Amino acid sequence: MRHWSQARRREGASLGFVPTMGALHEGHLSLVRRSRGECGATVVSIYVNPLQFGPGEDLERYPRPLERDAALLDREEVDALFLPRREEMLPPGFTTKVVPGPLGDRYEGRSRPGHFAGVLTIVAKLFAIVGPDRAYFGRKDAQQLALVARMARDLDLPVEIVPCPTVREPDGLAFSSRNAYLSPGQRTSALCLHRALERARAAWAGGERRGAALREVLRQGIRAGPEVALDYAAVVDPDTFEEGEGTLATALALLAVRVGSTRLIDNSRLDSPAQ
Amino acid sequence: MRHWSQARRREGASLGFVPTMGALHEGHLSLVRRSRGECGATVVSIYVNPLQFGPGEDLERYPRPLERDAALLDREEVDALFLPRREEMLPPGFTTKVVPGPLGDRYEGRSRPGHFAGVLTIVAKLFAIVGPDRAYFGRKDAQQLALVARMARDLDLPVEIVPCPTVREPDGLAFSSRNAYLSPGQRTSALCLHRALERARAAWAGGERRGAALREVLRQGIRAGPEVALDYAAVVDPDTFEEGEGTLATALALLAVRVGSTRLIDNSRLDSPAQ
Repeated sequence: MRHWSQARRREGASLGFVPTMGALHEGHLSLVRRSRGECGATVVSIYVNPLQFGPGEDLERYPRPLERDAALLDREEVDALFLPRREEMLPPGFTTKVVPGPLGDRYEGRSRPGHFAGVLTIVAKLFAIVGPDRAYFGRKDAQQLALVARMARDLDLPVEIVPCPTVREPDGLAFSSRNAYLSPGQRTSALCLHRALERARAAWAGGERRGAALREVLRQGIRAGPEVALDYAAVVDPDTFEEGEGTLATALALLAVRVGSTRLIDNSRLDSPAQ
Repeated sequence: MRHWSQARRREGASLGFVPTMGALHEGHLSLVRRSRGECGATVVSIYVNPLQFGPGEDLERYPRPLERDAALLDREEVDALFLPRREEMLPPGFTTKVVPGPLGDRYEGRSRPGHFAGVLTIVAKLFAIVGPDRAYFGRKDAQQLALVARMARDLDLPVEIVPCPTVREPDGLAFSSRNAYLSPGQRTSALCLHRALERARAAWAGGERRGAALREVLRQGIRAGPEVALDYAAVVDPDTFEEGEGTLATALALLAVRVGSTRLIDNSRLDSPAQ
């Protein structure tokens, strides 16, 4: 992989990189298209990163439709598909980790201890191997995006982190590889995430600026569905992820919900028109 | 710095890198000479890394003879001297860290909590900025060398870590920037480190292979001096830094000693002829 990247760089190509865990959907493909439009060559990696799964999470049953993924990427004319093996990524004796600051312990990090250290460690490795000029991440994983961007700044990694919009199905459900776990009934219940976010956006548009009140709108939106359990609902500063007191100037709404046994997350800027 | 490195690389030069905290001595200069002999261009950095000093350690009084250092490097004809400022290396909001595995909590890590996370984080940043093909580290900081090499392997950093022999004064004292803290009497007391290591080497040469016995030889060698307090003496596997039980096949002797208020470390392979 490194030799391939170095050869492209010697040819003068800029390198775009889309790291994924496979089970590709329109969200991933939007990142690939963005990279193809902006970079001379595009690399996609598929690696189901065991470090970012906690005990009892869905590492083993995480979908791995490799042939389908490869065909999709072929159709998008990506230049390279990187499929590192687990023994190569995490050989015996592997111990060094890249760990986030306190933001890594909140929201997703509180629900999934060690998750973000697992993400950052593997993303740092992939960056070091692929050596991209730009790397593309979806806004759906807002906290992951913030922590990866923070890592790139903090460690002076020579890569530009490009945030990309969340892609949704026509009814508003954000694309996620984990949507495949949902039964038809759960699929309908899962719409509560987008609906709750839309209600919070409507409240913001109507002038509501109090964090606690906006959070309550989110909670009420989730309370509605059957088979649905709220993990967290938060309204935070989009840059710092701090929950603001009093009147907010900007706001990012975060939601994590369990639908049946499937954990789904979604988020939305409340203060910007398009998502 | 990055632009300079990229330009050298475009010219086809291989890049050697010697990261230092300044107060340069013959040990550092041996690394510089090795790099100059092996690489097309050599970069030396001087950065007194606050992350690797604990509370109550000598961060503030650590020697910073910058003009003298620059003159020494000029004489060695290094190609670039990189002097990052603290505000650039650790700007507000800096939170991501590179942390070692369990070895980072032993020996130096036990005496200096957080020390190695501080070292690895800044070394990772310097590697990302300078982008060297090879980086040169002295064996005197044996545990640091092992952890930096482990980091480079674990994170797939595109750099070769080159271990270099400890350089000693004629009487055996290993060169260290902290030797400057020693009074003439302490300077004499500090010879106990090398003497103890030599005694352990003699015991090994005489057939002693029991770790506990070799460690006792080290302890006895340190007990001799005035103004000297032993921090730790250990005999470990050179690769894993595990203290072996029973009969050893290979051995690295580690010593940390306080002479007055100055903390000094030294080490020696017991099973190899030259150090």
